[in-house]
Amino acid sequence: MLLRHRHRHRNRSSLLLRAHQLFSTLSSSPPQSLDVPLSQPTYMIWSSNTSLGKTLVSTGLSYSFLFSSTSSFQSKKFLYLKPIQTGFPSDSDSRFLFNKLSSFSLRRQPPLSLSLSDSVIYSSVSAAKSVLSDKFRAPATEFGSGMYDLNLREVNENSGRGEMVSQLICKTLFAWEEAVSPHLAAERESGVVGDSEVLEMLGKCLREGLESDRERMEVLCVVETAGGVASPGPSGSLQCDLYRPFRLPGILVGDGRLGGISGTISAYESLKLRGYDVIAVVLEDHGLVNEVPLMSYLRNRVPVLVLPPIPQDPSNDLIEWFDESHDIFNSLKDIMLSAYSERIQRLHDMKKKAGEIFWWPFTQHGLVPEETVTVIDSRCGENFSVYKVRDKESITQQFDACASWWTQGPDATLQTELARDMGYTTARFGHVMFPENVYEPALECAELLLDGVGKGWASRAYFSDNGSTAIEIALKMAFRKFSCDHEILLDFLKNNTAERVIKLKVLALKGSYHGDTLGAMEAQAPSAYTSFLQQPWYTGRGLFLDPPTVFMCNSKWDLSLPEWLHAKIVKLQDTTFGSRDEIFDKSRDKSDLAAIYLSYISQTFLQNPECRGFDPIGALIIEPVIHGSGGMHMIDPLFQRILVNECRNHKIPVIFDEVFTGFWRLGAETTADILGCVPDIACFAKLLTGGVIPLAVTLATDAVFDSFVGDSKLKALLHGHSYSAHAMGCAAAAKSMKWFKDPQTNINIISGQKLLRELWDLELVQQISSHPAVRRVVALGTVCALELQAEGCNSGYGSLYASSLLQKLREDGVYMRPLGNVIYLMCGPCTSPESCRQLLVKLYRRLEDFNRVEEKVRAG
Amino acid sequence: MLLRHRHRHRNRSSLLLRAHQLFSTLSSSPPQSLDVPLSQPTYMIWSSNTSLGKTLVSTGLSYSFLFSSTSSFQSKKFLYLKPIQTGFPSDSDSRFLFNKLSSFSLRRQPPLSLSLSDSVIYSSVSAAKSVLSDKFRAPATEFGSGMYDLNLREVNENSGRGEMVSQLICKTLFAWEEAVSPHLAAERESGVVGDSEVLEMLGKCLREGLESDRERMEVLCVVETAGGVASPGPSGSLQCDLYRPFRLPGILVGDGRLGGISGTISAYESLKLRGYDVIAVVLEDHGLVNEVPLMSYLRNRVPVLVLPPIPQDPSNDLIEWFDESHDIFNSLKDIMLSAYSERIQRLHDMKKKAGEIFWWPFTQHGLVPEETVTVIDSRCGENFSVYKVRDKESITQQFDACASWWTQGPDATLQTELARDMGYTTARFGHVMFPENVYEPALECAELLLDGVGKGWASRAYFSDNGSTAIEIALKMAFRKFSCDHEILLDFLKNNTAERVIKLKVLALKGSYHGDTLGAMEAQAPSAYTSFLQQPWYTGRGLFLDPPTVFMCNSKWDLSLPEWLHAKIVKLQDTTFGSRDEIFDKSRDKSDLAAIYLSYISQTFLQNPECRGFDPIGALIIEPVIHGSGGMHMIDPLFQRILVNECRNHKIPVIFDEVFTGFWRLGAETTADILGCVPDIACFAKLLTGGVIPLAVTLATDAVFDSFVGDSKLKALLHGHSYSAHAMGCAAAAKSMKWFKDPQTNINIISGQKLLRELWDLELVQQISSHPAVRRVVALGTVCALELQAEGCNSGYGSLYASSLLQKLREDGVYMRPLGNVIYLMCGPCTSPESCRQLLVKLYRRLEDFNRVEEKVRAG
Repeated sequence: MLLRHRHRHRNRSSLLLRAHQLFSTLSSSPPQSLDVPLSQPTYMIWSSNTSLGKTLVSTGLSYSFLFSSTSSFQSKKFLYLKPIQTGFPSDSDSRFLFNKLSSFSLRRQPPLSLSLSDSVIYSSVSAAKSVLSDKFRAPATEFGSGMYDLNLREVNENSGRGEMVSQLICKTLFAWEEAVSPHLAAERESGVVGDSEVLEMLGKCLREGLESDRERMEVLCVVETAGGVASPGPSGSLQCDLYRPFRLPGILVGDGRLGGISGTISAYESLKLRGYDVIAVVLEDHGLVNEVPLMSYLRNRVPVLVLPPIPQDPSNDLIEWFDESHDIFNSLKDIMLSAYSERIQRLHDMKKKAGEIFWWPFTQHGLVPEETVTVIDSRCGENFSVYKVRDKESITQQFDACASWWTQGPDATLQTELARDMGYTTARFGHVMFPENVYEPALECAELLLDGVGKGWASRAYFSDNGSTAIEIALKMAFRKFSCDHEILLDFLKNNTAERVIKLKVLALKGSYHGDTLGAMEAQAPSAYTSFLQQPWYTGRGLFLDPPTVFMCNSKWDLSLPEWLHAKIVKLQDTTFGSRDEIFDKSRDKSDLAAIYLSYISQTFLQNPECRGFDPIGALIIEPVIHGSGGMHMIDPLFQRILVNECRNHKIPVIFDEVFTGFWRLGAETTADILGCVPDIACFAKLLTGGVIPLAVTLATDAVFDSFVGDSKLKALLHGHSYSAHAMGCAAAAKSMKWFKDPQTNINIISGQKLLRELWDLELVQQISSHPAVRRVVALGTVCALELQAEGCNSGYGSLYASSLLQKLREDGVYMRPLGNVIYLMCGPCTSPESCRQLLVKLYRRLEDFNRVEEKVRAG
Repeated sequence: MLLRHRHRHRNRSSLLLRAHQLFSTLSSSPPQSLDVPLSQPTYMIWSSNTSLGKTLVSTGLSYSFLFSSTSSFQSKKFLYLKPIQTGFPSDSDSRFLFNKLSSFSLRRQPPLSLSLSDSVIYSSVSAAKSVLSDKFRAPATEFGSGMYDLNLREVNENSGRGEMVSQLICKTLFAWEEAVSPHLAAERESGVVGDSEVLEMLGKCLREGLESDRERMEVLCVVETAGGVASPGPSGSLQCDLYRPFRLPGILVGDGRLGGISGTISAYESLKLRGYDVIAVVLEDHGLVNEVPLMSYLRNRVPVLVLPPIPQDPSNDLIEWFDESHDIFNSLKDIMLSAYSERIQRLHDMKKKAGEIFWWPFTQHGLVPEETVTVIDSRCGENFSVYKVRDKESITQQFDACASWWTQGPDATLQTELARDMGYTTARFGHVMFPENVYEPALECAELLLDGVGKGWASRAYFSDNGSTAIEIALKMAFRKFSCDHEILLDFLKNNTAERVIKLKVLALKGSYHGDTLGAMEAQAPSAYTSFLQQPWYTGRGLFLDPPTVFMCNSKWDLSLPEWLHAKIVKLQDTTFGSRDEIFDKSRDKSDLAAIYLSYISQTFLQNPECRGFDPIGALIIEPVIHGSGGMHMIDPLFQRILVNECRNHKIPVIFDEVFTGFWRLGAETTADILGCVPDIACFAKLLTGGVIPLAVTLATDAVFDSFVGDSKLKALLHGHSYSAHAMGCAAAAKSMKWFKDPQTNINIISGQKLLRELWDLELVQQISSHPAVRRVVALGTVCALELQAEGCNSGYGSLYASSLLQKLREDGVYMRPLGNVIYLMCGPCTSPESCRQLLVKLYRRLEDFNRVEEKVRAG
């Protein structure tokens, strides 16, 4: 046996730097380097309480794995990782394993060629003192939050007869002296380790242990947790939360004692509530047959294994017990190996199956080769965990910069909270029908809506399922209100048998998009989405105005004028803005441009036949400030404000389509706040639930509501979907609305202010806007969009121009999706500016490469 | 002190009868008698493990409550219920409380006038023997599953000076001798008690204890559980499941020891996962400051209270400890009282607030007075828990016979499973965007769909959010397919600039309903839903045929013929059917009627201008077998089958709208199976997720899919909603699809068969169909609908004719909703035939009353 130890202490300044880097990378998202190898079976060992025998299970597994004879002529490696150990050095689970396996291997005839090692990487200073005694060298400078770089290593080589040498590698990552919960030990011994440091070290050990092994070596790895599933780690984070980004499958060591059924089930549920898969439950027999109710609870989906009673006598070397348990551990090992194979097989097959049976929306299947399909194993906060095979299988992190089709809001903490709330709401309500009923989530959600995005104008909430249905409802509301105000309704009722000679139209802006159902499509100008090919029933029931837009180009915000304005341009001095704030400044209401806008809009009302007679304009609908699907165009807010005011003057109900823009997407809870005027009706969806399930709402004023009140049910608004105001959606919405606006939970909210702080580094945005490959940039709230310079078939919605660029960014861990030659970065309301900065940096770097290639193409 | 005991044993035959009644009432739903009083604060005392001091907490609370001086001159009552006690008589928690309070009251100066009692109602025979010893009288006949009617009662009257006498009432409901988990004790002592018996007895004790109290008596009640939150009860059901129908708010007694943080959090999560509210966590101080991480986890939403260390010496009378803990218990009591007041206040305010800020769909708000609004506190399986105030507040059970707007499927067990799955899926995925991606729930869902409702014809799954969007997608698919097959597309592409001269129409049946968005509405014949008042843009782009219908009247199934058929009626001998099966018999394909149908349909294609030229029929859309929203009309399946075949002959794509009819609604997983023919495209929603969240899918054949494949994205189907194939919906759908069709989980599936067993008692249905108040009945699968005899304004969708009848049925615990003068009972795929029978009985009884009143009205 050989005992080695080296001690170094980390340099203070490098430590601080590292902490800074970690902090800045992590806050709510794990660093990109946290790839987890999937090339070998790896399991967490969880337990429903302390002292239930996790380490005995690990030991039994290693014994069973290393000492079993296999048909193949492979040598084997068992990797045992103990990320967190308290009570060290007197308690050391990795040492226990090392010692037990050392003696097992000596016992065995013929002896097995086994190489064993046990390492302890970092420990608290007091633990280091205790283990090194006189060899301990105090660090030059005492540091408060660091750990001692103990790097203790013990090895043992047992040479047997065969040529193949199997390995047992045991590692303790972080150790503290006191035998208490890690968060207490860390605090008391001034050795606090952040979650990111634990994860990084664990990831490193997994990669080193699993990826560098010799060809065809058979490997099994377990990562043993400390205490119960929800016991705090050194930072205070619960371990089930701490390890969540890796989402390793687990074995749950349950409790065979009185009360143990409950503890085991609850622990299992805590793991499920965090998205973990548990593939087996193991527990010690205490004569209470706890396995029976456990199997019944688990409905035989998860096997339950029972170990013989563990001898209580401390002098017992447990050899007999391990022998007795051999079959159980063998079964457990087989379960682990086959569950691993099944998982890999499934992940491997998913791309192909998806291409065969899915019909993806907005997707030309002919253009999606199998290898480009993304297999998403899970998400944690802003990150996808994506299954990748390069030379070996792994799970890699990608920042969801399409913010999952513009819906996504939660950071990892909110995701866990929502998971509990979704479980609770399903259990409490499932779904209950809405009309004439009231239940807590719907009422709370409506109250929060009217006190939030509807504050100051809305007084009724009409729920539906998605943005498109919310728009159809809004149009019905607006048309009824218009009809009442303009006595069309009365006339119509008088001549009940008359033909439908009145053809109500909608006033809308070119390039705006309001949804995919026919009613919503009718409110948009003709586009790729509305062709006969797509919707033969589309007619376009609107008067569509061409709006002025604003964007950043060459580091400056500029105004882009539609044709109708060109004639009047002579009056204008300058069409650039000093800053984005200037664009939104209310003082512009008194500018020359305001007068031009107003005169144009007034003339529209006077000149267009749609505005009078039997084709009246019955509603105005706008996407405030930014047209999303239309290509991320920012509309001059001054123009929209004047348009809204003019419609109000003409008693035309105003609809804000905030499906995309609402709930902090553009930096404020409602974009009405940015625009500086309010609607009569507004539609919200997407981020409303924080981004977990569909729910939409159409808010309306009392005046709109009143136009539906009467004696007859036939006068009521007869539009509703079965899941209207479903409890689950309302509960998610209530939680998310509160979470996003609370400075306690959302770091981006500045107390007392109603705006998100700036997420996109201005300097980087300017740099990008000056890049030769870029035509224009719009950065506002959680969105940073840019249009690539592209000509001909490379531009427009059908273009595939951006594909190669986005493919490269996926390699950098950024998942983006194009709108033709427009690409965008999108984050959640809680994403840290530092994460956004990193996205911009990566984007800029790839733009450089992209441009070089494109230039070459152009050149020759 | 007075010791009384009476012993009776229950008569065997009455026991068996009772068991039978309970079984038949309960299986998946609690009996209607399970009303819970809400007139006094009542809490469950839960614990994260055994022996953490639940009884000490109950004792401390009773002491604090009874002995505190209040400003009011009310006497007080503390009701302590221990439903399940093992280890009896040596362990008796109610006895402990009784003893402690007896001694406390003696100590107090001036003494309090306190009347104390402790009762034990039932015990196992062995426990009874042990407690009664020589007084034990063996029951005349030994019975296997029963309990001994012990009825032991001990009382103690301490008279103090005041006039007011306070009360402590302690009750143990069921006791067993062995100190093991109740399910083991029950089994070993042959004293198994069903969940329903525990609930019934608990409900009875609560009603007796809380509702019969003297005027203005202040009451606090606690119900103390046994073991941990998920410890099994006597039947083996976990206690957190067993008590769920009452959903009493709870106090969680946590664990202050090492490992206790984890156990406490997990127990809390198990309670939340069953829809419970926990208002406080209490734990014993073990010097580990477990409360700090607990408070951090709970984000201060739930207070955490810490009790001083409990003396371990068994001889300690704990008097000092209780004195020391007095302030904590006082705080806890105050928290309980104020949480109760808040809950009542909120429940009380909800009706009014709902009327003020909700905008219910399909609801004339003017017709919904505040008092008719239903406050739904929760649902458990098929039942709503409704807040009611008659003379006192209570929570009462109503069977959700509108099956929550036709979506609802889960029994209580599936609801709990779905709760865990929804928590898991939120934690694992939240939502991730769908196009070009694959993740487990979406893939599994699509696989199950294609292997289930799409089996044999469908090969692609297109996801959306609700029935209406699924229909719009289906129409787009059908029109494209039609265009390709008929070369319209090619022509169109050639003349790209041409006007839209081709006006595609849809072939549909009068009375069918396909959704509320404009595209779906255009596919239905004009109705109350399509008027200018409702949708000014509706034009009705269809050729609408009047179909023959079938229904039961006077106990016979009869055919109702549309006008076009009247001329040909002479050919037909008889238009009645011997049974419902006869209607679906494929041999009818060769009947005279089939020939008449076929000739009519062929002529339709020949004669209507819509079928040729520029207004071609591009799709057939039908609701197979039953028109839902249109008034629950059953269409002659023979007619629909011939129509489908004829369209196929004309290369017109066939769409089945199975939004209402799919997933066992009509007794088969897909109604295509009943109808005997398959579509090219089919839409599903509602029951797809089992009834918890919105999700829809449009299934299509390969041939349909192929008409969208090409080189350009612009040829792809450009319709999609942000939450397309959201993980939560897909996970719920996957679980529900499997659950409903598995004989292991759905008692209504007969192994090897693909149909639900008959749920509606034929005799009762015939009786109802013969009732003078009833015009027609349709009973099929989970639906039993009837049209009330009504004339003039009493008939039709706007009618309020059925209101009084349905109001009465709500008093019987049946929640129904009318479609004008059509009413229906609807249950889930797992609802027991016995529950359905009870619904029919209640309905029949109320029909009698209703008819008497109506006859009086008609008479004068």
